[in-house]
Amino acid sequence: MVQFDYITEETKQRLCSLLQSFVTPERYAKFLEVLKNRTRHLTIVLEDIYQPHNASAVLRSCDCFGIQDVHIIENRNKYEINPDVALGSSKWLNLFRYSDPGENTVSCLELLKQRGYRLVATTPQKNGLTPDTLPLEQKTALLFGTELAGLTQAALDLADDFINIPMVGFTESLNISVSAAIFLQNLSHRLRISSIPWQLNRAEQDEIIITWLLKSINKSEVIVQEFLKNETERKSVE
Amino acid sequence: MVQFDYITEETKQRLCSLLQSFVTPERYAKFLEVLKNRTRHLTIVLEDIYQPHNASAVLRSCDCFGIQDVHIIENRNKYEINPDVALGSSKWLNLFRYSDPGENTVSCLELLKQRGYRLVATTPQKNGLTPDTLPLEQKTALLFGTELAGLTQAALDLADDFINIPMVGFTESLNISVSAAIFLQNLSHRLRISSIPWQLNRAEQDEIIITWLLKSINKSEVIVQEFLKNETERKSVE
Repeated sequence: MVQFDYITEETKQRLCSLLQSFVTPERYAKFLEVLKNRTRHLTIVLEDIYQPHNASAVLRSCDCFGIQDVHIIENRNKYEINPDVALGSSKWLNLFRYSDPGENTVSCLELLKQRGYRLVATTPQKNGLTPDTLPLEQKTALLFGTELAGLTQAALDLADDFINIPMVGFTESLNISVSAAIFLQNLSHRLRISSIPWQLNRAEQDEIIITWLLKSINKSEVIVQEFLKNETERKSVE
Repeated sequence: MVQFDYITEETKQRLCSLLQSFVTPERYAKFLEVLKNRTRHLTIVLEDIYQPHNASAVLRSCDCFGIQDVHIIENRNKYEINPDVALGSSKWLNLFRYSDPGENTVSCLELLKQRGYRLVATTPQKNGLTPDTLPLEQKTALLFGTELAGLTQAALDLADDFINIPMVGFTESLNISVSAAIFLQNLSHRLRISSIPWQLNRAEQDEIIITWLLKSINKSEVIVQEFLKNETERKSVE
């Protein structure tokens, strides 16, 4: 992996141009097309999801609807991905794992709050917001709890608001992968047709596209090493 | 089962009152509440779905979003329900199975056309309608194909229109249970906030509530037999 904190914006762009030459123009065009639809304005937090097919289906929905970041809290359950369901989607997302021994819910959620996210807990309760009424002006993190017990009290206590999908049947609950997809489809659609600046900035786009290129190129670490060596030499000559 | 074709509307209502006395008032109130949100204006057709967890998740979504009728075409695959996923939702739906030897797609779809349904095929192609743009004035049947191959050519040929969920990721496909849920949530929501008369009529409501009551009462067939015997006697006295 490239440590983006240690290289300048200009170096990033030179690295990107170099890596671009290792993939087909069609591939690179696909990257740009997907990238321009990616957002961090909306993100999701999965608290202790334990069924791999659910976890994987959620990642696939994130990719499909342009959600770049997924925050994964592992308190008791290790988050595992089922490749048949995820279809490789996790490769194109930024997964942030919170898996210190003990409870990680508070540290994850407080970090998101510091970064300006409004925390919205998804719950079956009917007195909250709905995918239609959730205000989207502020950056928003949707919180999902475990399959059986839902979100922990710690997560509910830190939530700024609650959201549910209105239902009218006997079975008033949906599988987590289905409910996540409904939220993401609705909210990302509302975001895209709004005037809210939901797109990634240039620096974010550069970092992501470099990461995608590195994952698509054989022996990319050798190319990067060579590039960084040349950069250092170039700088010492200057 | 009660043969509704052979009893009058008045008899239905007397049977309904009788059966009502066998369930708690809360149960009956729940039935009425769910029933007033049920619709046949929107229905779905599943062509040869073979994974029980997908089939079952679709039924659960139908119940959750108030879709009463599900048409199931079994050409090569028998439609099986996974009870852990369906959570009993199939009990509250009208399932119509088309499972004659050979192909059943055409007979199912032509029947729906005769009944005034517009057939809308769900496909991954991007040049069709979307959940936002599909007109809903006419009764609409959404067609879903198998997990791998999608809808058959016969189904595509009979479709009046095509619909897809806009996606912006690398993985441009969703699991069928996820995509069905997104369609049903969006379209049923649009229907409910429209002025289109999507509700069931009185006769339909009576038949459905009798069916639900029968499924909730022990030895209900004995009660119905007794009731119908008394009805015949009552009529012969008149």
